[in-house]
Amino acid sequence: MSTVYNFNAGPAVLPRSVILKAQEELADYKGCGYSILEESHRAKAFEEVIQAAEANIRQLMGISDDYAVLFLQGGASMQFAQVPMNLMVPGKKVGAADTGEWAHKAIKELKIQNADIDLIYDGSANHYKTIGDASQWKIDPNDAYVHICANNTIYGTEYQTFPETGDIPLVADMSSDIMSRVVDVNKFALIYAGAQKNMGPSGVTLVIIRKDLAERCPATVPTMLRYTTHIEKQSLFNTPPTFGIYIIRLVTDWMLAKGGIAAIQKVNEAKAELLYNAIDNSGFFRGTCDKADRSKMNVTFRIGDGDEELEKKFVAEAKAAGFVGLKGHRAVGGLRASIYNAMPFDGVMELVKFMKDFASKN
Amino acid sequence: MSTVYNFNAGPAVLPRSVILKAQEELADYKGCGYSILEESHRAKAFEEVIQAAEANIRQLMGISDDYAVLFLQGGASMQFAQVPMNLMVPGKKVGAADTGEWAHKAIKELKIQNADIDLIYDGSANHYKTIGDASQWKIDPNDAYVHICANNTIYGTEYQTFPETGDIPLVADMSSDIMSRVVDVNKFALIYAGAQKNMGPSGVTLVIIRKDLAERCPATVPTMLRYTTHIEKQSLFNTPPTFGIYIIRLVTDWMLAKGGIAAIQKVNEAKAELLYNAIDNSGFFRGTCDKADRSKMNVTFRIGDGDEELEKKFVAEAKAAGFVGLKGHRAVGGLRASIYNAMPFDGVMELVKFMKDFASKN
Repeated sequence: MSTVYNFNAGPAVLPRSVILKAQEELADYKGCGYSILEESHRAKAFEEVIQAAEANIRQLMGISDDYAVLFLQGGASMQFAQVPMNLMVPGKKVGAADTGEWAHKAIKELKIQNADIDLIYDGSANHYKTIGDASQWKIDPNDAYVHICANNTIYGTEYQTFPETGDIPLVADMSSDIMSRVVDVNKFALIYAGAQKNMGPSGVTLVIIRKDLAERCPATVPTMLRYTTHIEKQSLFNTPPTFGIYIIRLVTDWMLAKGGIAAIQKVNEAKAELLYNAIDNSGFFRGTCDKADRSKMNVTFRIGDGDEELEKKFVAEAKAAGFVGLKGHRAVGGLRASIYNAMPFDGVMELVKFMKDFASKN
Repeated sequence: MSTVYNFNAGPAVLPRSVILKAQEELADYKGCGYSILEESHRAKAFEEVIQAAEANIRQLMGISDDYAVLFLQGGASMQFAQVPMNLMVPGKKVGAADTGEWAHKAIKELKIQNADIDLIYDGSANHYKTIGDASQWKIDPNDAYVHICANNTIYGTEYQTFPETGDIPLVADMSSDIMSRVVDVNKFALIYAGAQKNMGPSGVTLVIIRKDLAERCPATVPTMLRYTTHIEKQSLFNTPPTFGIYIIRLVTDWMLAKGGIAAIQKVNEAKAELLYNAIDNSGFFRGTCDKADRSKMNVTFRIGDGDEELEKKFVAEAKAAGFVGLKGHRAVGGLRASIYNAMPFDGVMELVKFMKDFASKN
C-alpha cells in the first residue's frame, strides 16, 4: 500500500496510529473475547471508554466543572434545531452571524422555529469571502443568545476574533476547527461539533454546555432533545454511538501524546502557512478568501479565475498521485484541501510539491 | 482467545465473520489507502456501501417502492419524539399499546407533545407479563395512527399477532426483533429500529416509512426531524453515521448468505425452544412471562421465585465460564439471555449445558 494523503472535508483523515490500534483491538477488545462494537454501553469496559474520552476533552480544552461534556447524535444539523428549542426565550431575539453555508442553515432553522433574528453580520453580499473583526460587531443587549459558526468549511474562512457578547450566551458551531487551536471555553455558553473532522468518525456530536444554561429549556421539548436529559445521565440516557466515542477516546489520547492543543496548533499554523504561501506565490493558484480571515483547516483555492477544466484535471491527476479529496464543495466548486489535526506536515509538503509541478506543466 | 458467548441485550453480538472482515478492511478499504472511517459520505466508495445496505434490507424484508428505507440517528428514543412530531393530526387521538418499558416511554413522549391518547392495551397492571391476541384489540377508527413496540427487550415478551388497524397507519418499534422473523411490511406504515441488536453497532436507526405518510408533517417541524428531508436526500441530507451503515451492509450480506430471514427465523425458533425448554424442565429456573407471548430474542428468567443471591452467583459463574451479559435489566432484575440473529445455535447449546450444571450444583 503506497502512501495516500486524504484531504477530505469530513469524514476525514484520522491519525494512522489510531486506525491501526482500532484495527488491532477490533476482534477482541482487551482480551474480553469479543469486539468493542458488541459491548454493552452499561458494561464497565465501555464506561471506562466514555469517561476517558470526556476526561481527555476536559483536559485538552481546559473545561471547568461549570460545563457538561456530552456525546450526542445528529451532527451540527441537529444542533441547528436543538439549540433554539432549548435556548430561545419568548420576547427576545436570537443573535446570529451569517458567515457561510452552515451558519446560514442554522439561521434557516431559527426561522422555522419562528425566532426573531438579530442579524449581527451578513456575509452573503460578498459571497462569504470575509468575516472581519467580529469583536467589533454590535449585539442587541436583549438577545437570548448569539450563534456563530467558528470555521466555514465550504468557504474557507475562520474567526480570528470572537464577538464580545458580555452576559449574552455565545453559542458556537466548531465542527470543523474544534481542538485545532487554543480557545477559551469560558467565553462560550455552548460549543458543539460533529466529530467527523478533528475528533473521530461521523455519528457523534460533541456538546460542551454551561450547565446553568441548560435549565432554560421549556417543558414542551421532547426528552431526547433536552440537554438536561443528557447532562443528568452523562450521555447514557439511551444507547450512545459507542464505537464513535471509542475512536474519539483514541484520537484524544493521541492529541495528549502530541503535547495537547497548543502544540498541535503550532503544527496546524505551519501547515497552513506552507500551503497558503504556495498558493500565493504560484502565479497560478489563487486563494478565494480575504487573507486575514483564512481558515487553517480548510484551504480553498482556484486555478486562475476559476478554470474549471484545469481544476478537473488537477483533481484527477492529484488523485492518481495519492492526494484525494481536493475537489471543492459542490456549492462553490474550485479546490479545497482540508488539513485537519491528523493531516501530517509531510502530507502538506508533498501536496505543495505536486502543486508546483502541476503549475509548471500547465 | 477462548470462545466467549455474548448475551448482551444491545449493543450485542455480531456475526464473527463480519467482525473479522471489518478488521481486515479497517486500515485500507478496498485498496484506497485509508480507512472507511475516513471516507467522505459523498465519495463513490461510500455511495456503494449505503446503496448496498438499502438494497439488502429491501430484499431481505420484501420492501416495495412505496416505502423509503432511511438510516437516521438517535435510536428508538429519538423516534418516540420524531414519530408524533411528523404524524400527529390535530383533533385526532394517537392509539398506543403499553406492553413494556419502551412502549411506555413512547407514550410518555406522546404526553409531552400533548397527544390525546387512545390506550388500546395496558399491560402495566400485570407487570407486562403478557400481550395476548393483539389482533382482537379495539382501535378507535378516528386514531391518527397506532404505535406498538413489537418486542419488549426488558420484559421478554413479543407480539405473536399484530393489531388490525385497517386504514389507520400502524407504527412499530422493532428495535429488538427486526429481521429476526418474517413480517409483512405492508401491514405497517412505519417501522423503526435501533441497529444495535440485530443489525450492527449503536448509532444508526433504521426507518422504513410509507412515503405518502411522510407528507403529513407540519411545516413547523425542524428540517432534521422531518422524514421528508431524509427521503428526498436518501439519508444523505447531512453526514450519516457512515461506519455503522458499513457494518449494517456487512451484516445484511451475511443474512442473505444465510438464506434470508425465513432461514434465520428457523434457527431463532430452534434456539428459543432449546432455551425455554431448559428453563421449563429445570425445576430450578422459571420463565417470567406468559408462555404464549414469549420473546424469541430476549429470554427472561429467574431462579426460583427470584433468589437474588443465587442469581448473582449465576451471573458471575457464567461470566467466568465465557457466557457474558446474562444479568437482567436493572429495571426488573433477574436473568436475561438475548439470543439475536448473530448468536450461534452452539452458544445457546453451551449455555443450556452450563445452566443444567449450575442447577444440579445449587
